[in-house]
Amino acid sequence: MILLSALSLASSTFAQTWIWYPGDYEIWLGNQMNNRRTERGAFFPPFWKTDSHYVVVEFSKQLNLSEPEEIFIAAEGKYNVKLDGKLQFGMPETMLLPAGKHNLNIKVWNQATPPTIYVKGKTVNSDSSWRVTYEDKEWIDESGKASDTSATIYMDAGCWNFDGATQRPSQFSLMHEPQQPVTKSEQPEGGILYDFGKETFGFITLKNLSGKGKIEIYYGESPEEAKDKAYCETLDKLLLEPGQVTDLAIRSTSPLSNSENEYTLENSKAFRYVYVTHEPGVQIGEVSMQYEYLPEEYRGNFRCNDEELNRIWEVGAYTMHLTTREFFIDGIKRDRWVWSGDAIQSYLMNYYLFFDNESVKRTIWLLRGKDPVTSHSNTIMDYTFYWFLSVYDYYMYSGDRHFVNQLYPRMQTMMDYVLGRTNKNGMVEGMTGDWVFVDWADGYLDKKGELSFEQILFCRSLETMALCAELVGDANGKQKYEKLAAALKAKLEPAFWNNQKQAFVHNCVNGQQSDAVTRYANMFSVFFQYLNEDKQQAIKQSVLLNDSILKITTPYMRFYELEALCALGEQDAVMKEMKAYWGGMLKEGATSFWEKYNPEETGTQHLAMYGRPYGKSLCHAWGASPIYLLGKYYLGVKPVKEGYKEFAIAPVLGGLKWMEGTVPTPNGNIHVYMNSKTMKVKATEGKGYLTIKSRRPPKANIGTPEKVSVGVWRLWIDSPEERIVTYHL
Amino acid sequence: MILLSALSLASSTFAQTWIWYPGDYEIWLGNQMNNRRTERGAFFPPFWKTDSHYVVVEFSKQLNLSEPEEIFIAAEGKYNVKLDGKLQFGMPETMLLPAGKHNLNIKVWNQATPPTIYVKGKTVNSDSSWRVTYEDKEWIDESGKASDTSATIYMDAGCWNFDGATQRPSQFSLMHEPQQPVTKSEQPEGGILYDFGKETFGFITLKNLSGKGKIEIYYGESPEEAKDKAYCETLDKLLLEPGQVTDLAIRSTSPLSNSENEYTLENSKAFRYVYVTHEPGVQIGEVSMQYEYLPEEYRGNFRCNDEELNRIWEVGAYTMHLTTREFFIDGIKRDRWVWSGDAIQSYLMNYYLFFDNESVKRTIWLLRGKDPVTSHSNTIMDYTFYWFLSVYDYYMYSGDRHFVNQLYPRMQTMMDYVLGRTNKNGMVEGMTGDWVFVDWADGYLDKKGELSFEQILFCRSLETMALCAELVGDANGKQKYEKLAAALKAKLEPAFWNNQKQAFVHNCVNGQQSDAVTRYANMFSVFFQYLNEDKQQAIKQSVLLNDSILKITTPYMRFYELEALCALGEQDAVMKEMKAYWGGMLKEGATSFWEKYNPEETGTQHLAMYGRPYGKSLCHAWGASPIYLLGKYYLGVKPVKEGYKEFAIAPVLGGLKWMEGTVPTPNGNIHVYMNSKTMKVKATEGKGYLTIKSRRPPKANIGTPEKVSVGVWRLWIDSPEERIVTYHL
Repeated sequence: MILLSALSLASSTFAQTWIWYPGDYEIWLGNQMNNRRTERGAFFPPFWKTDSHYVVVEFSKQLNLSEPEEIFIAAEGKYNVKLDGKLQFGMPETMLLPAGKHNLNIKVWNQATPPTIYVKGKTVNSDSSWRVTYEDKEWIDESGKASDTSATIYMDAGCWNFDGATQRPSQFSLMHEPQQPVTKSEQPEGGILYDFGKETFGFITLKNLSGKGKIEIYYGESPEEAKDKAYCETLDKLLLEPGQVTDLAIRSTSPLSNSENEYTLENSKAFRYVYVTHEPGVQIGEVSMQYEYLPEEYRGNFRCNDEELNRIWEVGAYTMHLTTREFFIDGIKRDRWVWSGDAIQSYLMNYYLFFDNESVKRTIWLLRGKDPVTSHSNTIMDYTFYWFLSVYDYYMYSGDRHFVNQLYPRMQTMMDYVLGRTNKNGMVEGMTGDWVFVDWADGYLDKKGELSFEQILFCRSLETMALCAELVGDANGKQKYEKLAAALKAKLEPAFWNNQKQAFVHNCVNGQQSDAVTRYANMFSVFFQYLNEDKQQAIKQSVLLNDSILKITTPYMRFYELEALCALGEQDAVMKEMKAYWGGMLKEGATSFWEKYNPEETGTQHLAMYGRPYGKSLCHAWGASPIYLLGKYYLGVKPVKEGYKEFAIAPVLGGLKWMEGTVPTPNGNIHVYMNSKTMKVKATEGKGYLTIKSRRPPKANIGTPEKVSVGVWRLWIDSPEERIVTYHL
Repeated sequence: MILLSALSLASSTFAQTWIWYPGDYEIWLGNQMNNRRTERGAFFPPFWKTDSHYVVVEFSKQLNLSEPEEIFIAAEGKYNVKLDGKLQFGMPETMLLPAGKHNLNIKVWNQATPPTIYVKGKTVNSDSSWRVTYEDKEWIDESGKASDTSATIYMDAGCWNFDGATQRPSQFSLMHEPQQPVTKSEQPEGGILYDFGKETFGFITLKNLSGKGKIEIYYGESPEEAKDKAYCETLDKLLLEPGQVTDLAIRSTSPLSNSENEYTLENSKAFRYVYVTHEPGVQIGEVSMQYEYLPEEYRGNFRCNDEELNRIWEVGAYTMHLTTREFFIDGIKRDRWVWSGDAIQSYLMNYYLFFDNESVKRTIWLLRGKDPVTSHSNTIMDYTFYWFLSVYDYYMYSGDRHFVNQLYPRMQTMMDYVLGRTNKNGMVEGMTGDWVFVDWADGYLDKKGELSFEQILFCRSLETMALCAELVGDANGKQKYEKLAAALKAKLEPAFWNNQKQAFVHNCVNGQQSDAVTRYANMFSVFFQYLNEDKQQAIKQSVLLNDSILKITTPYMRFYELEALCALGEQDAVMKEMKAYWGGMLKEGATSFWEKYNPEETGTQHLAMYGRPYGKSLCHAWGASPIYLLGKYYLGVKPVKEGYKEFAIAPVLGGLKWMEGTVPTPNGNIHVYMNSKTMKVKATEGKGYLTIKSRRPPKANIGTPEKVSVGVWRLWIDSPEERIVTYHL
């Protein structure tokens, strides 16, 4: 774990920063990342539409200066500068602004990277208060008078943390740190296997190279994979010649650097093991790596009496850190892409770990891309819905209404796309080109007709649209989406609830309920509270705790399955499941959590997926869900109003003797300690209720807990002093 | 005039060529061009949305090889190659394809320039038969099986004439040729004025540079402009230092080249005159230029007994050549942008001059750009309508149905945009952000409410959509657009025809006809044949030949005004007008035709526009309309069926003693000679009628003219032998 608060890339308010069209830098950077995937030396770009930035962008600012002021201007791209409509000569680097009210415009063209600018003066500085547009529609009439631009759509400029003049956004790279293998073993058939001790990510460095010939590097998340030249998922092939190395995949030749005759690969890879072979004429002195990472502060944490659970939390946090890069990605070995269904879980885990809002926003922008919408998010129907849901989640945790405002027009066009693909019942069905994913299931999942699971996500998305419409003041939109959501919601039970099965069935085809019951719709309906209390409890027995229902073998859907059980108060059962499932992976030697884990498999079965012996990702973001579950349902902390203006704290030991941890809030944190007798809670911002389950009236050092119902009490917290509560299990 | 048939850039069918996503290279190249505009040393990009290429594109081809075959592969961008779904290592330059049926896929990513590929084998070669998509939607299921991609939208690859492996499309540039000034005169106040003899375009070259200091270059289409340092429209400022020159506008430093200490500017300019001044420490040996041009074959021509008219044709052709560049642009000095209203006239003139279909298609692609549509074409309502019209014009002249097929989806979304902006009467009115242009008029033009002119263009656009829908087999679309067109057409006379004025009024505001009558709607209604014969004749008197109606002072609208008169058989009157108007410009010293010409102005008034003393462009494509009028209404040649499968030839001397000329057809030409007694017509392809006005029955060497009406005869031509017809004026 790396604690780098000083280097944190989190957003801050500086006097000036590089700015761009909101979402554009994010999309461009995402393209850099999504296009780094390789498969056995082949470039492997995404199969959905790759959007790009607006290539001409105008930045503007209305000035009101008490005295003249000189500004420094830098831009990425060819640019012009207008003061009060008058073009200045060339591309001025400095400019004297006169006192008084003035309009400053800077227009930039850049095909290759997003148009960005950086302006630094005494008071005039580029920041998110600048306005940007991709078409100013500022024509002139015959007399030279400029048109009214009132119909031009301006946005607030986007920015991140590029606060120095030389910190050009297009030059961004993650941090690097050299790391050494922990063991090195010569293999009987030739070549050397290096073990870096745990799952990691970075660029292999070869030192003291000499001679001439080919070098082959095989990567593995397992030793089996690294040693399997024919089937390992990633590899590199190099040609060493005097003084230089050619990467044979990308046909790029580089000189050996410095006195150590060193070469570091241009492409990063994920691995724990590296198997290096070479032709006889080659000598390699040393193999190491440059670990590549996004500096993140671990603002959330969790400790308890159970060391296995502590290890689960730590490996989960490391899994999250490895997959939190330029964006929240799925897994580091194979896809290295941004996927909406994976990302929404990363966001939720992030709120209990890094609270890195910038990475959430970047990822949401990238996943949305640009209009026109030509497919579901990542082509997956369910992923479109998660994208909607993630926006309101973000608002609740961060309180950042501005982001919702910026994004709302693209939410509308995305929903237009969905609404354009509904059937005569107003429900979504997979049309050609739609990937109805749901989950990687170990068993047949019917994807035909109306899936109850998809309708529930669709309904929640419509509710999200209504909430966001209200946030941005779109009264018509609010009404429209509320109506659509209510209409769809009213159809869910008639269409999918089966009284005999006491559950939602999996799907309806041609108006007929299928026989199948799966967990998906049922578990979502619980934590969305789409059913009454009785039906929720029924589902617990008929589905969630019923072993005859198709088991979930991805941590991805276990995330929601266990969340549903927690929401139903089953923390004790979930604790056992967490220890069995994630503990099970640890027992298999996991140093990061996996894309899929079926406890019934053994040995190298755990490595295979997609019909490939090492197809499975052993470091997958969605593997880290205990981070979220422990924070939200054991420490019990969540926002009730946006940005933790009001919080809820309802700690549950779930069988532990004691636990303690911190949950980050926008500008503070909530610390919770709990054992069988005492709770200690300290919230440095916000206010809210601490919920206490206690046989007898609990006592607090500040304030008096009030009774809510039998055995349930609550204590209002509205100041940062630590509350110490004694209670009775 | 330059005749460069060997170097012609016209499209040809080669064994292999660089290919791309259709429209994308065109849009990218258009950005290079539209962003070369400068104003007094400042970069000046367009004010409408600048679209860009898809950055990830997949190219595919189904193979059926009788024997194994090695192919060579080149790409602009990072790429992969798949054979039957299997990714190949790296970015292979060569590949052995096995015999039999196979699928070959190449996927390319390129942010900066359009993804393009070039494949050369014995039989497998990249060409427009390859399919391309920007999202293949080819996901895999858990077993590794690839998804059905039947919903993926494939297009035929785009191409031009980049037929060599090293002819990378992103490296395209026009041709260059050195030219010398014809005079050089030292000015009393210092500096030297160079005259290149006529309007031209290119890069200034300074030779035998020595010393150190600033050099300033002022460009002028007139000597007044070049000498006016404070107000000339374009200029360059350089800093000469030992061995190098810095362009101060773009802050780019280049070494002096070769033994002549030579420097050529990076930015091209339009000018006839160049005024060069410098600081005392600078010595300049020689000033010349690199003329920049698109090689075009002058396939059309026109000669007659009137030397002034011959000169008008020649200067028109030169004006067209100067403005026919990467695209058809408006004028070469100032905007250098692609404008739809200007372009449709360039296309029409082009059909009678170069018949350069590739330049038409490039320009149509660029003008349309990408979805979503966020404004009218160039922000101008009328320009959107011209864009629609230009597509069917192109089809009629070229017979290229494939292009209509490729473009049709973007025609639909463009029309959706228009239909989304109609009022309760189903008519278009300027909404905020819409530029209702019509013309640069010397007098007040009301732009409010429903302009009759805009409705007529709108109606014609709907008719065009119906025609194109039929061409591409969209029966529903045809019906929809026909219905919309008919509904709108039925409203035109009730809304705008004024019986008292015997004309369409200019506009209706709040359901009330305005008092104003302008020429625009009236002249379009004539050649669109939207009114009965009586009303057309009425318009001739009440509007077209009525001097009290606001005069047109742009060649732009004179194009249509004179076309309307020609369509009404007024070739004699139009001939006088052409000689007066274009001859008037020649008398003012024009070496190319102007953006605007008001014969009532004098001296430097002719240079001013937009409130700027040299704002007017003296080389504007729309200035060249005699090229079109002489070909279509004097030589009298036009297509009746697409691609001149059937033509109409109706020569009219219009007061000339004799004339002769050639009109190009897709794969041949139509030559017409006519004097007061004889017509000679030779059509190397197609068939059609020659219309002969003759007092007595005309005689032909082949076939017998049949009588059509009093004094009108026609002769069917269906072979390439020359027809010689004697007739009686």
